[in-house]
Order: sequence, then structure tokens, then C-alpha cells
Amino acid sequence: MPPRLEFWFEFASTYSYPAAARVEALAAERGVALVWRPFLLGPIFRAQGWNDSPFNLQPAKGRYMWRDLERTCGRLGLPFRRPSSFPRSGLVAARVACRFACEEWLPDFVGAVYRANFAEDRDVASAEVIGALLAGLGVDAPHALAEAAAPESKAALREQTERATQLGIFGAPSWLAGGELFWGNDRLEEALDAALSAPVGLPKT
Amino acid sequence: MPPRLEFWFEFASTYSYPAAARVEALAAERGVALVWRPFLLGPIFRAQGWNDSPFNLQPAKGRYMWRDLERTCGRLGLPFRRPSSFPRSGLVAARVACRFACEEWLPDFVGAVYRANFAEDRDVASAEVIGALLAGLGVDAPHALAEAAAPESKAALREQTERATQLGIFGAPSWLAGGELFWGNDRLEEALDAALSAPVGLPKT
Repeated sequence: MPPRLEFWFEFASTYSYPAAARVEALAAERGVALVWRPFLLGPIFRAQGWNDSPFNLQPAKGRYMWRDLERTCGRLGLPFRRPSSFPRSGLVAARVACRFACEEWLPDFVGAVYRANFAEDRDVASAEVIGALLAGLGVDAPHALAEAAAPESKAALREQTERATQLGIFGAPSWLAGGELFWGNDRLEEALDAALSAPVGLPKT
Repeated sequence: MPPRLEFWFEFASTYSYPAAARVEALAAERGVALVWRPFLLGPIFRAQGWNDSPFNLQPAKGRYMWRDLERTCGRLGLPFRRPSSFPRSGLVAARVACRFACEEWLPDFVGAVYRANFAEDRDVASAEVIGALLAGLGVDAPHALAEAAAPESKAALREQTERATQLGIFGAPSWLAGGELFWGNDRLEEALDAALSAPVGLPKT
């Protein structure tokens, strides 16, 4: 098996935006195969008794996060505008991403959703906006949205979220590499190191 | 004014250990004056309704943190052993550090407390252990402990903790540089950049 990195992301997650913008080029540069793993944080947060983002529940941490995210995007040259509504449900987008995880257009779709939310302040919770983003990539949007809304697609995302919980994932972005879990945009480079230092040919997870 | 970095730390905070081990050399290398700001996270956590460390209240996050801290220390060549008790109160050590913040031995004392807690599993909540660490640095321990327990020393730490709250600090380590707040061991380098890019001669905070 080639070195492999799993990118666990949630569309509502702020730091998943710079992570998604960075991961493809970095993984390619280092020869690491990238696996896209959309999941939902909502059920994981609710299991802890939270009914909102911790960035809303903890105002000081939230204020800090928005400024830190702005600085992080600035350093990366990524456009950023604080969304007028947060968090926006990633459910529709995550069902699409889970159903079409291996399509060639998937990375561009993920990037388009994050930019729409965190740079263009568009309501990515709505199927209309997601459909427009898909169409912009040349994808048959009505077909893709219908597929993503099928019972088996819903079940697949539920299962992926359950798997996240089993892996000990508690936030996004998270990385799985070399049998180890890493959390945060800040840990992408370390996760790539772990992917490359894992014994080749031995599945570790 | 020379470029200046404030290091806000709590002795019970796990990631403050690698931060404290790194900050002195990095600040000196970059010509940034370092200000040591011990404070207590307990009152800040209690104001949010937490009666324990979030790493204990959120078990998945706690499990991850211990492994991530072990990896972080490993990468830095710092000794690490998971303490048999967590968190250990940093009250006594913080009163000492607050009272003697400008003493030449202060950085070594801070490092000694973190190593005692996170590499040697010693009960740094006890005045006896803190006294032994002070004595090991050639400090008159009974005198220093008595000074640190004086009403004005207690008040000084309370005031510093209130100032942390006013600054929007919600965790440790935190950094203040160029009028900006940064959070986490991972943000030390960025905080140093901010210290160096701040207009010289203009107090920003």
C-alpha cells in the first residue's frame, strides 16, 4: 500500500477550510494518497450535550477563532469573510461528498463549498446553493442531489460519522495516518510525516 | 520599546510545558523581550460552568491530547510521562512565579515545575515540592514561599487572572504580541512574527 492520509472534515468547520485548501497539493508533493472523509460533527457534539458549535457556546474562544482564522487565511492567501450565519449545516454537502468521494470533481467541490461559506457568505446549508456549486463544476446537479438524498447515501454518511466517533474524532479537521489520529489544520504536516513513516504494506487502522 | 512577547501560562496546562521549554531560546534568537505572565485557568473555566479540565470533561479530546502531547514532546526531545493525577493545581507555583516574575531564576523555576509535573510525575500542587524545586535552583525556598503566600502576592495573581479574562484569554498557553492574542504552543512562531512586525515605540495593548 502507498502512504495514505485520511482527511476527516465537516463542511461547517471553520479550520477545515484552510485544511481543505492545503491538503491536495501537500499530499501530492509528498507522494501520499489522499482519502476524503466527510462526516458530521453535530451528532458528536450532541452526544456531549452541546446543541451548538463550541465557538458559539464559548464566546471568548469564538471571538479568538474568527480572528485566528482570518490571520491563517491571510497567511495562506485565501479569501475570507466571516459568515453572517454560523454554523451552517453541512448535511447536504456532506451527503454529496460522501456519495461521490472518489469522483474526480470531488476536491474542487469541497473547495467550492468552503469558499462559498467562508469567503462568499453563501448559504451552503441549502440544496439550491449546493446545486449551483455542482453545476459550476460541470456536474449534473439534479442527478447528484437526488443520488445524495437517497436512503443509502444518508446511511453511508451516518456510518461514516459513527466511524469517526469510533476513531476518537471529536473535532475537524482530523487526520488519520500511520494508525494515528491528528487534529487541526496545524497538524497536517505532522500527519503527512506519520503517513510516510508508517510501515509500507501493513494496514495500521 | 523593543519587540515584546507576553507568555500567558498556567502550571496545570499541558501544552504550556513544551511552550515554556521553547519560548526563551526562540524569543532571544529573534531579539524579542519576553514577559512571563502566570495566571490561573480555574476561575476562567468555572465562569463557563466547568469544574474540571476540559480534557477530563471531554474524554475523547483528553485521550487525543495525551497522545498528541507525547508526540509533541518527542519531536522536541523533551522528557514526558503522563502524570498520575491531572490537573494538579498550579496555585502555589503561580503565586511564586507572579511574585518573582522578574527574577533571573524565574525561567528555570517555570521549567522545573513543568518537568516535575509532566516528566517526573511529582505533586507540584504541594508547597513542599515547589520548595524543593526552588531550593534546587539555589533560591531561599522558605522565604520565597512565605512571600508568595502574602496577601499582596495572592492579590497580584488574582489581578493577573482578571487581566487574562479581560484580554479574552480562554486557554493556555496564550501569547500577546503586537496587540494580538494567540493561543497554543503551535502559535508561538506566529506570535513572534507579530511582535516583530508591530510598530516600534507604540504600545499596542
